[in-house]
Amino acid sequence: MEEKKKIEVCFSPALYHLYHNPKANVVVIDVMRASTAICAAFAAGAEKIIPVGTVEEAKKMKEAGYILAAERDGIVLDFADFGNSPFNFTPGNVKGKTVAYSTTNGTQAINMAKEARKLFIGAFTNLSTIVNYLEQDVNDLVILCSGWKDRFNLEDTLCAGAIAEKLLASGKYFTICDSTNASIDLWKIAKPNLLEYIQKTAHRERLRKMVLDDVVEYCHTPDSVMVLPYYSDGVIMDYLLKTQ
Amino acid sequence: MEEKKKIEVCFSPALYHLYHNPKANVVVIDVMRASTAICAAFAAGAEKIIPVGTVEEAKKMKEAGYILAAERDGIVLDFADFGNSPFNFTPGNVKGKTVAYSTTNGTQAINMAKEARKLFIGAFTNLSTIVNYLEQDVNDLVILCSGWKDRFNLEDTLCAGAIAEKLLASGKYFTICDSTNASIDLWKIAKPNLLEYIQKTAHRERLRKMVLDDVVEYCHTPDSVMVLPYYSDGVIMDYLLKTQ
Repeated sequence: MEEKKKIEVCFSPALYHLYHNPKANVVVIDVMRASTAICAAFAAGAEKIIPVGTVEEAKKMKEAGYILAAERDGIVLDFADFGNSPFNFTPGNVKGKTVAYSTTNGTQAINMAKEARKLFIGAFTNLSTIVNYLEQDVNDLVILCSGWKDRFNLEDTLCAGAIAEKLLASGKYFTICDSTNASIDLWKIAKPNLLEYIQKTAHRERLRKMVLDDVVEYCHTPDSVMVLPYYSDGVIMDYLLKTQ
Repeated sequence: MEEKKKIEVCFSPALYHLYHNPKANVVVIDVMRASTAICAAFAAGAEKIIPVGTVEEAKKMKEAGYILAAERDGIVLDFADFGNSPFNFTPGNVKGKTVAYSTTNGTQAINMAKEARKLFIGAFTNLSTIVNYLEQDVNDLVILCSGWKDRFNLEDTLCAGAIAEKLLASGKYFTICDSTNASIDLWKIAKPNLLEYIQKTAHRERLRKMVLDDVVEYCHTPDSVMVLPYYSDGVIMDYLLKTQ
């Protein structure tokens, strides 16, 4: 009998050291908005995304000729081509191109988890694609929620719960992790009316104040794209194309 | 109109730096078992409890003549008088006495939060007592879950949710904190059958393996005691007696 794989959910990059396991795959989630935007980029035909940590590094990438998507606290950096709304990642902007990308939370979490066995980027928009792949993979799994400046956030937790619920239902995974069980229970509450549920999230309110909340519905609509962003050696590519 | 006070819930001591506010009260929760045991101690007539961080300090307190309750990972330290089962804190063991106390998670969290405006220890067993006091207090509130070795845990989160739900219902508090909303939603799921719900917690399983799970029902039964453990200047006392 095939051995079941373990799922753990990490609620904050500041707790990741407790979960890191070089033999486990990691899925990094930043629903609003980095991981949704990365999925949108590959759906729009981007070839590669280079996640960049600091503002200084982002500026250097721009000077080196890369297209740069970069924001801090929801505000587009003034030397960037655009920020991290998924709606910016259109075929016109990114098709066939390599995009340098730096955000408040999501790209930091990706860089933190780069020692994972395999590192994927997950969102509601590629939920089924990521679940279908992970069902077949043989490694344990850590789902890393990017949160907001190291704080727990609801939308990443709900997405983690959606992934974990499906993987446990496949019979190929198990969990003994309280944060995984909490994520799934919160997802079960939210699922029947996700858009209504997330009205209460702190980041929904943060984006509303900055008139950036046009993305909320898109970010919480499952399965609009079929891409599997995969990080390796400093570059994110679509694993589905890479392994074709 | 009286200004509403803010509630935040911190899921791990490792995230406490994000929540610390010297003007806010803190309630430290470690349902299984430190905060429940501290409540039991005062209900049994203990005069003072001195929370002690390290094993070395615990040993010194014993040598200095204090009664010592101390455990690590559920195991009683061999030089201690007893461990942290609330059932140890009987009138025979603690009435009128000062107890030195050191545990894996709970006493560490108490020491971490000692710069709070006022620092209380909360459990299911003193739920109404702590809520009744906090309704009247004028400060913001941070509920600090002790977790398990810096990981999120369900039982502390549920207790945080129970406190937060009652305080919000009083109309004297508000929240814009995702972890507070998550705690309340998890508590709403668990509340109708708390003992069944917590069967799935990781720590329930940890205690079962060590045959220490006789305390689980007691730790999750609300309002068995009427005490309000309060930390100040290195010592925990019952605030209800202190302020009589």
